[in-house]
Amino acid sequence: MTLNVEFGSDNHSGVHPNIMKAIVDANNGYSISYGEDEITKNSIKKIKELFGSDVDVFFVYNGIAANILGLKTVTNSFNSIICADTAHLNVHECCGPEKFTGCKLVIIPTKDGKLKPELIKPYLIGTGDIHMAQPKVVSITQSTELGTTYNLDELNKLCSFAHKNNLLVHVDGARLCNAAIFLKKDLKEITRDVGVDILSFGGTKNGMMYGEAVVFFDKKIAKDFEFYRKQGMQLTSKMRFISAQFNAFFEYNLWAKNAEYANKMAQYLKNELCKITEVKIVQKVEANMVYAYIPRKYLQKLREKYFFHVFDENACEARLMCSFNTKKESIDDLVNSLRNIIKK
Amino acid sequence: MTLNVEFGSDNHSGVHPNIMKAIVDANNGYSISYGEDEITKNSIKKIKELFGSDVDVFFVYNGIAANILGLKTVTNSFNSIICADTAHLNVHECCGPEKFTGCKLVIIPTKDGKLKPELIKPYLIGTGDIHMAQPKVVSITQSTELGTTYNLDELNKLCSFAHKNNLLVHVDGARLCNAAIFLKKDLKEITRDVGVDILSFGGTKNGMMYGEAVVFFDKKIAKDFEFYRKQGMQLTSKMRFISAQFNAFFEYNLWAKNAEYANKMAQYLKNELCKITEVKIVQKVEANMVYAYIPRKYLQKLREKYFFHVFDENACEARLMCSFNTKKESIDDLVNSLRNIIKK
Amino acid sequence: MTLNVEFGSDNHSGVHPNIMKAIVDANNGYSISYGEDEITKNSIKKIKELFGSDVDVFFVYNGIAANILGLKTVTNSFNSIICADTAHLNVHECCGPEKFTGCKLVIIPTKDGKLKPELIKPYLIGTGDIHMAQPKVVSITQSTELGTTYNLDELNKLCSFAHKNNLLVHVDGARLCNAAIFLKKDLKEITRDVGVDILSFGGTKNGMMYGEAVVFFDKKIAKDFEFYRKQGMQLTSKMRFISAQFNAFFEYNLWAKNAEYANKMAQYLKNELCKITEVKIVQKVEANMVYAYIPRKYLQKLREKYFFHVFDENACEARLMCSFNTKKESIDDLVNSLRNIIKK
Amino acid sequence: MTLNVEFGSDNHSGVHPNIMKAIVDANNGYSISYGEDEITKNSIKKIKELFGSDVDVFFVYNGIAANILGLKTVTNSFNSIICADTAHLNVHECCGPEKFTGCKLVIIPTKDGKLKPELIKPYLIGTGDIHMAQPKVVSITQSTELGTTYNLDELNKLCSFAHKNNLLVHVDGARLCNAAIFLKKDLKEITRDVGVDILSFGGTKNGMMYGEAVVFFDKKIAKDFEFYRKQGMQLTSKMRFISAQFNAFFEYNLWAKNAEYANKMAQYLKNELCKITEVKIVQKVEANMVYAYIPRKYLQKLREKYFFHVFDENACEARLMCSFNTKKESIDDLVNSLRNIIKK
Repeated sequence: MTLNVEFGSDNHSGVHPNIMKAIVDANNGYSISYGEDEITKNSIKKIKELFGSDVDVFFVYNGIAANILGLKTVTNSFNSIICADTAHLNVHECCGPEKFTGCKLVIIPTKDGKLKPELIKPYLIGTGDIHMAQPKVVSITQSTELGTTYNLDELNKLCSFAHKNNLLVHVDGARLCNAAIFLKKDLKEITRDVGVDILSFGGTKNGMMYGEAVVFFDKKIAKDFEFYRKQGMQLTSKMRFISAQFNAFFEYNLWAKNAEYANKMAQYLKNELCKITEVKIVQKVEANMVYAYIPRKYLQKLREKYFFHVFDENACEARLMCSFNTKKESIDDLVNSLRNIIKK
Repeated sequence: MTLNVEFGSDNHSGVHPNIMKAIVDANNGYSISYGEDEITKNSIKKIKELFGSDVDVFFVYNGIAANILGLKTVTNSFNSIICADTAHLNVHECCGPEKFTGCKLVIIPTKDGKLKPELIKPYLIGTGDIHMAQPKVVSITQSTELGTTYNLDELNKLCSFAHKNNLLVHVDGARLCNAAIFLKKDLKEITRDVGVDILSFGGTKNGMMYGEAVVFFDKKIAKDFEFYRKQGMQLTSKMRFISAQFNAFFEYNLWAKNAEYANKMAQYLKNELCKITEVKIVQKVEANMVYAYIPRKYLQKLREKYFFHVFDENACEARLMCSFNTKKESIDDLVNSLRNIIKK
Repeated sequence: MTLNVEFGSDNHSGVHPNIMKAIVDANNGYSISYGEDEITKNSIKKIKELFGSDVDVFFVYNGIAANILGLKTVTNSFNSIICADTAHLNVHECCGPEKFTGCKLVIIPTKDGKLKPELIKPYLIGTGDIHMAQPKVVSITQSTELGTTYNLDELNKLCSFAHKNNLLVHVDGARLCNAAIFLKKDLKEITRDVGVDILSFGGTKNGMMYGEAVVFFDKKIAKDFEFYRKQGMQLTSKMRFISAQFNAFFEYNLWAKNAEYANKMAQYLKNELCKITEVKIVQKVEANMVYAYIPRKYLQKLREKYFFHVFDENACEARLMCSFNTKKESIDDLVNSLRNIIKK
Repeated sequence: MTLNVEFGSDNHSGVHPNIMKAIVDANNGYSISYGEDEITKNSIKKIKELFGSDVDVFFVYNGIAANILGLKTVTNSFNSIICADTAHLNVHECCGPEKFTGCKLVIIPTKDGKLKPELIKPYLIGTGDIHMAQPKVVSITQSTELGTTYNLDELNKLCSFAHKNNLLVHVDGARLCNAAIFLKKDLKEITRDVGVDILSFGGTKNGMMYGEAVVFFDKKIAKDFEFYRKQGMQLTSKMRFISAQFNAFFEYNLWAKNAEYANKMAQYLKNELCKITEVKIVQKVEANMVYAYIPRKYLQKLREKYFFHVFDENACEARLMCSFNTKKESIDDLVNSLRNIIKK
């Protein structure tokens, strides 16, 4: 029996039809490479309409690159980057950040994947001490790797705290759209307006084939990015095919529709799981993922049918992801499977 | 007037329709990410059918990554990598190789972009001397950045020389297909069979949207590649969309047809240019590019209409590229434009 | 008034007279550079007599280099290095380890600066997972940065645990001699015999001017060290002047005498401080340093007279260091100063 | 028979007695570490008296570190550093510059180890092109690795050319003192006054035990140096022992006396060798080294008695070094040995 991988990750989904159509349409004759083409210019213009005309926008292939190259651009190798223990940057980038930036990651334990000023404060030592890595950036993930979301108040406090301490704020926004939907805010309100400096703006997990954007809200700090992007192997030649995806992403608010749908499915999944006494939802469901505790014996059986991640095997917590194309029936099937397993 | 960019690069072309169709077809439901999917397995199987079942094949986004990650996997930071002065590795990768590998590039001047044992020999000093970078790999480009091609005899001699000196051989094969067609050999005959150890196997310049393969002909030296790929930001999540392109690439020998056509167009372009007394072809045309000397005053005028690269402004040598979708009429137009410019 | 810096660090001491004499004596005519000289050969021979003839020994300038170069030699950039939160490697090397190795430091909170298998275990995740840094080495400090010492049983368990998990064990032995004295064991018994793989063997903090040794207990893993040492800017030309120091270090067991004296002074200092009700010794005194809690108002006053480190200003814990040349009277002065401050 | 190593390198010499005395004298009680001590402050003050009070001076262990850390401080990883093919930076630093800076070395062939504007000009391509390494620094060696010296006019032209092209100028001054003596200029006249931006100021080859200084003539570009020094493992704890050497170096112009003597001995050696018909001096003798062609059969015999470097075995060119303690009689012996070999 083939494993059902539907809930394994939001990147298990294919490409949204509108995005695919944009790719096909972009395949129209010759076009200058490396981002000088009209589709790319148009796409960057659209993103500037969202965030302000005075920002800098660059496309890269994937989220790890958006994070690493964005951070490299604003750090020296003797700096440190502060992040939550659960950050993708820390856990799932195979020490790419350390290798490419040289920086130390200062890793802060959290319960819900969210940094707070009071959590960061004890780690802010050694500023000016030549023996110690110099803190330079706080990197947060919005929505987090645990499916939680920073609200406006939390964002404001965090950015304000960071800036007071001469730290920049980077947002790993692989699932920024899901956060915006949950918070009922637009993308600018939860990034630039609260004081974020650098944004990894994700597309792939929200219906795109490949391609993410790095947005610098202050052009001054962005000036070296293009060289690091090339050096970092992330300058795509046929860039129009990334740009076209972003154009479709913003047309008729596809980004919002996809994220809204995915979030809604996660709520539905959560609600259905809540009906099962043995299951416990262990993190707030504020985006498109559900973290559910499932007793080991049931969990094992469920994994024979479904592929999904259990990052801490001891904790028996399943991460179940929804996306723009998750079907309600699939959720029902999953929940019923689990019910049947428990019944036996 | 918009510049005509048709001859600017083979990556100015769009995507071959068969490749695009394969991408669209791959967008079929859920699929596990990061290369565990069936399309990727199938694609790797096809490449192994070409090169031997005991090779290792990995996909990355682009050619610079194929080069850098392939080389990183077989070097330590105290090694040196030997290449021609014209190598993409040296000229157009923004010191990405130095940054990611730590290695020194030993850069050897050539007339035609081709390394030879006698050119390399004087640079093979310091083996075992702890003060000096230790030579580890010879990297050649096939076909070269100047449009020339190593023949079988040259390849055999070079690989044999390298191996005698405990050096591995890497081929930057961004345009390997064009070389194979020119030499009337299959891909294995010009790589594995002559002794090549690592191959960057290009797709993008030959009709693909994005995606290249790294092929190790000895699995033992490949063992760390997957970690370097992830760390190097080159592991794509929705890998099926690269793999599907390679599947189409090998179906009905599309790779060969595209390269054959591009080479043919380059010959046609060369022949037409040869008819103009003022123009001089400065490199052998053995792939899909033509290097043509055009007197400065005509060159300037031509560049007002056409975008193409002139890497050494002093030399007045235009690099004119053909691809799978170059039209004969476009070549005629280009040549006529030049004629008209000269006439005036 | 000049600050008294005597207790600030064991590197505030000068050079032991016997070491200085050896340096002066080594200044005798011409000598081949970079370690091929007789003094160096003799010195390495002496270290091999201590640890076994089948080890590899290399000299570097300082302890940070011994750590970083030793670790670089046995890691790839996608590996992780496990260490205590208090490790010099983590706190006081300005992300040099991350920059030079590319590796992630996996930082484990401890109460006493000592790692234990049960502390490490939860962090051993992701082995073989290409998204995650691959654990490769456990680095411990002996004696620790908090003045505590791993006993033989702890060392045996840790090394055995590490090896079972395919991890190497590195010891930052900047103060190894102090640990050996405390444990009443010879240097081999607390390193090689318990299973340590790589040792940074410190001299500077124990009476030398500059110079540390890196000892590999398995020559196979040492093979690249010499290239990394040169590349890492740590190959000294006039090496005889480091080697001569090590020769003196081992003659008449100077290393042991110095460490024994320093440890004794630390015990004396501890005992004197214990007599002051307001002061609390916060870590076991098992080497040459005393960690003492001093109420903030007294601490501030004391710091007007004495320079010493208080790494966590909130905790009001003074680190007071003894060395081979700490005088009993100086300790009495310090303690009396504190008494007087409290009395007022 | 033991090989005579006297002419093998200027670092085969021991330490000048005045320097050694200063080291011994510095061993006087406690002293704060890492450069905050009075001896260091005094030493830096002396260097500022030579070069101007508005410069920044830092000590490191050795010359390779002075070069690499000085260059790292003023470059980003996408920059290139221009140097002669013979540069120590290129040949004898085991790709340490590439590893630590990430930069590409642009290596320019020269006949005499000296760069000139017209040699550099053809390599200044790609400024602003995101695909290419961005030239940032010209690094020259004064006096050169071939024993030649840039005169004031050459220095002025080179620096002026560099600055016009937005390039900084770095001088590897491992043998700067020898150049100053040859040119009959003081140290400032041949560095700051001609426009040099960063200087690696060597001590070890001119009578010191260890220790070099990095001098930035513009404090603004020096601001990150201290962090890179620590991260680069080059911050010595007992710094007073480097500083004391520099103090002695400047007292009674020891630096000048030593260099003057070494240069004089090189002239004497050259003159004696010139009397042997079979020998040919192949580079101008403008510092403390003599490059002499010796026919292979004689060279081989001579190397049985004397250790010296022959960097290009095919060229049969011996590099013979003089230092502050080279004896006239030793030169006579060497020359006589060669005569006897030839006679037989």
